[in-house]
Amino acid sequence: MLSEAELDRVCVVLVRARNPSNIGAVARAMHDFGFGRLRVVNDYPVPLEEARSAVDASAVMAAALSCARVADAVADCTLVVGTTAVGERHLHHQLLPLAQAAPRLLAELRRQGHRAGRVALLFGSEKTGLSNDELSHCNWLLTIPMRTPAGARHVSMNLGQAAAVCLYELVRNGESGAESNPPDAPAANPATAAQLESIAALLTEVMQATEYTRRHAHNADPAHIRRLVRRIGADAIDAPVWIGILKQILWKLGLKPEAPPNP
Amino acid sequence: MLSEAELDRVCVVLVRARNPSNIGAVARAMHDFGFGRLRVVNDYPVPLEEARSAVDASAVMAAALSCARVADAVADCTLVVGTTAVGERHLHHQLLPLAQAAPRLLAELRRQGHRAGRVALLFGSEKTGLSNDELSHCNWLLTIPMRTPAGARHVSMNLGQAAAVCLYELVRNGESGAESNPPDAPAANPATAAQLESIAALLTEVMQATEYTRRHAHNADPAHIRRLVRRIGADAIDAPVWIGILKQILWKLGLKPEAPPNP
Repeated sequence: MLSEAELDRVCVVLVRARNPSNIGAVARAMHDFGFGRLRVVNDYPVPLEEARSAVDASAVMAAALSCARVADAVADCTLVVGTTAVGERHLHHQLLPLAQAAPRLLAELRRQGHRAGRVALLFGSEKTGLSNDELSHCNWLLTIPMRTPAGARHVSMNLGQAAAVCLYELVRNGESGAESNPPDAPAANPATAAQLESIAALLTEVMQATEYTRRHAHNADPAHIRRLVRRIGADAIDAPVWIGILKQILWKLGLKPEAPPNP
Repeated sequence: MLSEAELDRVCVVLVRARNPSNIGAVARAMHDFGFGRLRVVNDYPVPLEEARSAVDASAVMAAALSCARVADAVADCTLVVGTTAVGERHLHHQLLPLAQAAPRLLAELRRQGHRAGRVALLFGSEKTGLSNDELSHCNWLLTIPMRTPAGARHVSMNLGQAAAVCLYELVRNGESGAESNPPDAPAANPATAAQLESIAALLTEVMQATEYTRRHAHNADPAHIRRLVRRIGADAIDAPVWIGILKQILWKLGLKPEAPPNP
């Protein structure tokens, strides 16, 4: 069974959810399974008031955070997993079916270490799912296996139902003890998404300052850089080192007023 | 993976669903996972028209059956399983968590024999769940494990979310092959719910005709009799025999115009 502390380390992140009643439905599913951290990302004021009236989800909605950017919503997380519909193409991320994804999520929740892992589960808008830019914040992706009839256009699940199924599978894994043998043990001390975002921002500055961006514009897309940074697999020890190196380069290029302190 | 024939043997039965949009949400979850048989039980005309507009569920809604009684909705099924919220008391039925229930459902769907098993999954009204009378049509019950905070009143899941979670677990079992070792192998050739209902009806007549009902009114409740009949575990061979015996008794009591043909 998931402990209170483990439940508390799961963040459900809704990106560009359009329908307040869908936000309420997700909050209700979270409440039913014992989760409490809901974060809503929108570039306009989110109509949370309407969702706050959702049946049985008042505590979840009252604690819900509204964020302007995905980076803010996942900043304190050490594992960021995006959800996507079956059949969509993803060139840049590993994609696991939910039943295989849950043991990995659980392993991160149960990792021992001085920085207990917080896990973000991202859901995209009802209409378009997660954009490439939003996906670039993710370590990997999961999908709920569905059946698309031959010839039918691909459909995605209802947002509240998708959240309910994902959270059910996570709780189910916690009860069955299936997590005792996770497929890939997580890094002992992973960097937070906020640290990786700092590295990506500094790397972007360096690429611009060195005119790499001008010469290889196709490699300078923000989502591309974000994925590049995630692939280096920096842990919490490495991350400040990378940040120091990049700041040092910028200083040498005359773009920072003074040398940064040694890490 | 569940075959088309296996998917086709699952009947989702909504009993007294009040909200057309909930019926539509269940239909959408069925569509997403490849199920097609929806049956709606209400004692007044069901507002299916409104539900028929549910996104991506038009084929499921177009084929939905409207039934006046639970008995009609499950008549052709050899296994009838009710869903219930954690924490409710059930004195008369075995109650399994969903993860343990799914392999049994699957075993019935995959049973070999001249009468391929059809399985009904019953969901009660959003407000009250399944009544004792409705539960009496069930062979056993399943529940989705949820977390109720200390001191909070017990809550049930949203209907569409509950259906999505149950169908997901069924599909998941079909993919994992977990059904290869079901906990209880189903009877080789179980009676249909319609046969059991006939036995219960005849037994009720016999109990009234013999004045058992007058002397032991507390045992003559319809739900009590239905459970009694389910416990005898009659299979498709036994069921007509029981029906014949009961009809013979009624004839002998002067309540049937002529002796029934020998089975």
